[in-house]
Order: sequence, then C-alpha cells, then structure tokens
Amino acid sequence: MKRYERFADEISELIRKGVLAPGERVPSVREASRHYGVSPSTVFKAYYQLEDRGLITARPRSGYFVREQAPRLLTEPEATPGQQETADIAVSELAFSVLSSLQNRQTVPFGSAFPSPALFPLARLARSMAKGLREITPAGIIADMATGDGDLRRQIALRYRMGGTPLPVEELVITNGAMEALNLGLQCVTSPGDLVAIESPAFYACLQVLERLQLKAVEIPVHPREGIDVEILAERLARLPIRACWLMSHLQNPLGASLSDARKQQLYTLLKAHDVPLIEDDAYAELYFGSRPARPVKHYDDVGLVIHCGSFSKSLAPGYRIGWAAGGRYAEAISRLKLMTTISPSVPAQVAIADYLHQGGFDRHLRKLRHALESQQRQMLAAATRYFPRETRVTRPTGGYFLWFEFPRRVDALDLFHRALDAGISIAPGPIFSATQAYRHCARLSYGDPWTPRSEEAMAILGKLLATY
Amino acid sequence: MKRYERFADEISELIRKGVLAPGERVPSVREASRHYGVSPSTVFKAYYQLEDRGLITARPRSGYFVREQAPRLLTEPEATPGQQETADIAVSELAFSVLSSLQNRQTVPFGSAFPSPALFPLARLARSMAKGLREITPAGIIADMATGDGDLRRQIALRYRMGGTPLPVEELVITNGAMEALNLGLQCVTSPGDLVAIESPAFYACLQVLERLQLKAVEIPVHPREGIDVEILAERLARLPIRACWLMSHLQNPLGASLSDARKQQLYTLLKAHDVPLIEDDAYAELYFGSRPARPVKHYDDVGLVIHCGSFSKSLAPGYRIGWAAGGRYAEAISRLKLMTTISPSVPAQVAIADYLHQGGFDRHLRKLRHALESQQRQMLAAATRYFPRETRVTRPTGGYFLWFEFPRRVDALDLFHRALDAGISIAPGPIFSATQAYRHCARLSYGDPWTPRSEEAMAILGKLLATY
Repeated sequence: MKRYERFADEISELIRKGVLAPGERVPSVREASRHYGVSPSTVFKAYYQLEDRGLITARPRSGYFVREQAPRLLTEPEATPGQQETADIAVSELAFSVLSSLQNRQTVPFGSAFPSPALFPLARLARSMAKGLREITPAGIIADMATGDGDLRRQIALRYRMGGTPLPVEELVITNGAMEALNLGLQCVTSPGDLVAIESPAFYACLQVLERLQLKAVEIPVHPREGIDVEILAERLARLPIRACWLMSHLQNPLGASLSDARKQQLYTLLKAHDVPLIEDDAYAELYFGSRPARPVKHYDDVGLVIHCGSFSKSLAPGYRIGWAAGGRYAEAISRLKLMTTISPSVPAQVAIADYLHQGGFDRHLRKLRHALESQQRQMLAAATRYFPRETRVTRPTGGYFLWFEFPRRVDALDLFHRALDAGISIAPGPIFSATQAYRHCARLSYGDPWTPRSEEAMAILGKLLATY
Repeated sequence: MKRYERFADEISELIRKGVLAPGERVPSVREASRHYGVSPSTVFKAYYQLEDRGLITARPRSGYFVREQAPRLLTEPEATPGQQETADIAVSELAFSVLSSLQNRQTVPFGSAFPSPALFPLARLARSMAKGLREITPAGIIADMATGDGDLRRQIALRYRMGGTPLPVEELVITNGAMEALNLGLQCVTSPGDLVAIESPAFYACLQVLERLQLKAVEIPVHPREGIDVEILAERLARLPIRACWLMSHLQNPLGASLSDARKQQLYTLLKAHDVPLIEDDAYAELYFGSRPARPVKHYDDVGLVIHCGSFSKSLAPGYRIGWAAGGRYAEAISRLKLMTTISPSVPAQVAIADYLHQGGFDRHLRKLRHALESQQRQMLAAATRYFPRETRVTRPTGGYFLWFEFPRRVDALDLFHRALDAGISIAPGPIFSATQAYRHCARLSYGDPWTPRSEEAMAILGKLLATY
C-alpha cells in the first residue's frame, strides 16, 4: 500500500468513528502535513482519493469538508431476542422461490447474494488462466486433485501469515467455494439429529445445510453491530448438548455485524471449554472498509477446533467456485469427505487464481473493490433515508455489501418481496434468514452493484410500496 | 465419421467377434472393394488405420493378416456369487490408503482411476477456455450458476439426441464431475438406513458414498461380460425394501461388463415395476471400442425413474470437473441439493467445454482416444499372458481402460499391493471393490497410460511377485 493510501485510510477511519464529524472542516494540507508528518503531496493525493470515495468534498476557497452523510434519520436496529430454543428447519422451499426469482437479469438485484461481477478483474484472471494452463503438465492436471493445487495452497497460507494467523499448508483443503467447505466441515463434526448453535438472523444457506443434514438449530441472537450474543451462547452451551457452532465473526450475513477481538477470544475460550468445534464462515474477510483486516476466531485457535472457511468468490473470482477450509484437526476428515463427494474443484480455476496471486495486484484490486462498495453503501443509505418510512431501522456495516432493514411492524416482507418483483426489483425478505421464519418485517438489500439512476428509482419504488402498509 | 473409418470399424468388429481369426488373411483390397462395395482407396486407408491400431499386419508380398493376439492362455473369470445379503460398509479407510499411494508420480500407475491426461486435447481446451472467457459477460458469469451454462446443457442434450436418447434440456443438471451427480442423485432418493442395490464387485466410490450416507448395500453379482445378474436383483427386489439401485450398465468398473440391450430393458421393466429409482453411472459412455455407442438404461425410461450420470472427465477434460445428471423426475431436487452444497461447478470450465463442443472435433478426438485405449489394452493383455501365472483369469472388456485379474486363490492382493508399491508399481487391490472386502485374490489394473518399456517391465515384476505366493 502506498503512503498516501495509508494516510487516506487513517482519515477515513477518523470520519467513520465520528472524530471528524459530517460538515466539519478537514485539516488543511499544510496543517495535515505538519501534524501527521507526511509530505504535502501525500496529503493532496489522499484528499483526492477521499473525495473520490465520496467521504470529503471541496468547497471553493474554503478547503475540504467531511461530506454530509445521509442524515441519521434512520436508526440502527436492536438485537432480536431468540425465538424458540431449538428448531427443526424447513426454510428451503421459501429460500428457493426467492433465489429463483433472482435469475431474471432485467431485475434490479437488491436481493442478490453476489456483488456485481463487473467489480472484478475478470480479464486479468482470464490471462492468468491461459498462462496457468500453458504451464501445467498433463500429469499435473490430475495429480493434485486430492489435495488441491500446491501453489494455490501456498499462496493462501501466505495470506493467512500476512494477516497474522499463520497456519500450516497441510491444514488447507481447496473446495468448490466456501459453500462446500462449510458443508463438509459441518458434516464432519455432526450426525443427524444433533444440535448446532447458529446465528439469528442467519445466512439462509446455513439454514438449508442444517435442514439437509437433519440437524436442529439453536438460534443465538446477533446484535447488529456487536455480533453474536456470547452470554446467551454460553448459557445454551451449558444446558444443551450442542455439537457444533456455525457463525460469521466478521461482516455477518445479513446484519453486517463484526465481533471485537475481545469477544472473539471470549467466544473461542467458551467453545474450547465445551470442546465444541466452530465452523467459521469468513466469506467476506477481504471486504472490510477500514484499513486493516479483521482477525478471525481461528486466530485464537490453539487446538485445531476451528474450521475456518474462506473463498475467492466475493473477493476476486466470481463463478470460478474456488474456496477453502483451514480445517484444524478436521482437515484430513474434510479432505476425505470431499474426495467422496466432488473429488476436486476445477483445476483450471485453481491454477488461474494461483497465477493471479503470484503476479501481485490482488491487494490493489481489493482496495478498489472496497472503495466501490463503501461508496455504494453510502448511496443506498442516502436513498433509503430519502424514500423509506421514518421508523425504518437500518444497519451500518463496516464492510461487505448488505444492508439489513427493519421496517415498521405492519410491513409484510414476503408480500413486499412479491410486489417489488412485479415492479422489477428483487429483495431478500427477512423470513429466509430464520429457522422459524421470523423477521417478517425485515429485508436484506444488496448494494453490491454500481449505483445508477435505476437503483435510485428502485429505492423510490420500494419506498412507495412501503408507504402502502 | 469418414467412410474409411466406418469400414475399418466394420473389419475390427469382425476381428473382435472372431469371424476373422488371428493369423487369418484379411480380404485383399480388390476382394474387399468388390465384396463391401467401397472404393479401393477406402479399403487402403482403412487397412492403414487397422495396421496402426495393431489389429492387422502386412506380410511382404502376401497381403494383410489378422495379427496374432496374445494367445488366450488366460481365461475370463466367472461371476462371483453374492456375499452376504445386506451389509454395512466400512471400506473408506482401505480405499483411502490405496488412493493416497497413487499420488507419487514416479509410480507406474496401474492402480490409477484416470487415463493419462496426455491422451486429451488439453491445448485446444485451453484455447476454448480463453475464447469462452472473452465472450462471457460479467453478468453471465454468475447468472447461470444455478442451472449450469445454457450452451453446455444444449450441447449435452444434443449428444443425447444423436445417441438416440432425446431428453429435455431442463432435465440436465451440470455438476462437479459424475461423482457429484451420483452423490446428489443417491441422496435425493434415499434416507439413512435405507437399502440400496449395488454391484459386486463395485466401483469403490459407490461404496464410499453409501458409507457416507449411512445406507446399507445389497450386493448383486456382476458377470464379467454380461453385467449385473438381473434375476438375482429381481429376487432381492421382491423380498427386500430396496429404495434405490446404483449400477453401471456399460463398461462396469471394475469388470468392464456391459449389459445387452435386452437385459437393459428387462432391468428397467423390473425397476419400474417396483418403482425403484436407478442411479446409472455412465462415466465411460464414450470409451467403447466398437463402432456404435451403447444405449443407457435411461433410453428405456418413460417415467423419469433413471438418474443418468455422465462426465467429461474421462472423455475430454480431466481435472475440469464437469459432469452432469439427466435427473428425470428428480432433476429439480438434484438441482436444489446442488445449490445447497456446492452452488455450481466452475463457470470457466463450463464455457471452455461448451466452446470446444461447439467448434467440433470431439468425435475425432474420441476415435483417437478409443484406438489408443484399445491398443494399450492389447499390450497389457499380452504382457499379462507372458508374465502372470497360467491360472490367472482376466476380463476382456470392449472399452474403458481397466482389466480385472483373478489371481490364484493363494495370492493376497493387499499384500501384493504393498509389495508392488515398494517396487514402484501401483495396483487397485480387489477388496476395495467390495462392501465385505471380498475379492482378496483379485486386482484391477489400468491400461489408461501409453504403453512403454517401463509398463512392460512393471508387468514382469508383478509376475515375479505373483510367482512367490
């Protein structure tokens, strides 16, 4: 990262934390240069970038000011208390009908689970694919199927190391996206009928996997900013024979919550005391808006209890279907289960990503991606403030590409989903994020696509629909 | 297919059936031209090709003769009667230790499950990949993940139609190789504890999948030439609550047996009468040595009872991990289960294969591949005749790349496996093909790699090891 980029990140951090408030004047170039010990040209470049990211704005003859954010008319939601204690799950039918509605490419994709592929370096990946395929020997194309491409595993291990969580290459199992890693991980540590602690609201795929494996959910409430309620989890662990825990410690889907380091450590200590393995879904690891990556719970794992699942699908290569599990003590079992079910992820996709990582430029791409998502979030928040009912509550995640809306209780999100779809707009209605189909007045909206006048118009239409309840 | 190629196939068929016996003179060009009504130049070209395939040989001034095959000193094995009626399975541990031994690339890979990737058009596929990636839109790369690439599905449907088994594109679910298709198919039609009729000996992955899904095997004997014993299957179906049947009707792994059309129809009628779904593993569909593809059991399916699973891994694109299920009435369920477990196979691999099929040349490649395998089979059979004990029995499959050896009863195949491995040779020992670890004196050997002096030497070493029992 260049010096001015680091400096821009520092200032953006001050803005995010409110140290520099909306409307406030940003230190002049001379002041900043003196105060932070950087050259005036570094400050200039940083301010240009911050302006570009929409965080500050220049006023003629007055200097730079923190941009007026969407006025905080919409407050953040509170944690929802747990529903029932354990639940059989039957969410698939509903989730599938929502998902299949997303296949129409003409629809405004607020309901999508993927950021726009236009945000990714697809052409460069294609070149890496061509290069990788030229360099692989015929024997190599089948030799590494069981373990995954050696280069790719080393590159992933390197990124863990750079992130402060070194782990042995042997722990890494390359999978068909994070989804397969999560599936295999959960399957390795449970049997049908077992209880699994999950978040509420939770990523609907988690609910589907539990349903498929005939596991029972113990739903633990998630605070929209702080993440999963560790006290409630502790109480449940003490009382119920919970066999595994599946959660997202960072940029939780759908709330966007992230656990503090202290809470992560507390969570890990708790799970370790009960010897309950953690399946940690960290699909959005790279999509933080701040200047530093979050450490996963895996960071604190000293006995191999955490199966940390990552992916390139949301950070680099959508559709390539390459993810991994850092499987801890379960790595061997996960690898075998994979051999029995899909054998191996696509080798060309693996060599393409390995070559791309080798070439460098991943971090540069990620910074661009983060800035794009950050700016898109701001635009969706501003639009929601303009068009949605005043009582609406909305999260303010520090990364990712989802906002979670709590509408007034009179709103029926499933009804809204159907009416919005008729108007050419998809949303992800609240009930698909709950084992018990709670969150009937909530919805997850994605800002993963570049903001356009059409997005603005779609928000206005949603606002009109919301006004009818 | 060109005229001379068709004619060459006709002659090779006569040789295979023994109508033209080893050592016998092949009709002269003039005779053949008159008798079969083809031009002399067509006969010439066909004879050149047959010579190239090692089926006939020219003697100076005497014309062409059917080449002396390996003398039939080694006879074919008989069907092994069923073991016990139903069995819990615990084969994984053994199979994994065998499989992991194959990862050493220095080993002579007689134990391999894959033909040599050198036999495949990898460079052309790489070009198709580059082209496909240039042409796909960013939106396209995620839009078709649920259903699979539209072009690819249409191309596969077209091949079914050309093979005489037309089916709707909607029935096709693109998967991570045939392995995922088989897994998803079996999972869709069973619950833990169910009985599943399988072959004995069976593909070890089938046993592993049953083990993973906690299903019980009802092993039905397979005749080395005729395939699964339909009478015994009928008896078992009448008496036991069998919930599904998994088999290979064509080039069964490991025996190489293929059912006749009449038996396939009989089998289908039987399953339909009991409303028992069939998971038909047809991974070797394209690897027949004759002139015409075999029809799958799926061909007779008029109620959607057959889940027909295919793959490009053994016919075109090893390591790409693209297969499919023609799922019949279960297609939707399979597709959903896939969305919950791996979401989608790699999109670049799909567009590469779709483009390759579009360009044409697949059938030309397949003919070359079949001829290579046919010639490699002949060489392995000849070497076995030279080096293995006289009492050894061996199959003579009409396709694929496996021979199944029944050694004298005193031979312990697991012991042989370990001793061979010490000598740098892998084999697939019989017990991994049985739920009850039968076939202790048997082994599957692959002739999927081009035959070299090293292969010859490895056969000689195996012969010496066999002589020590």
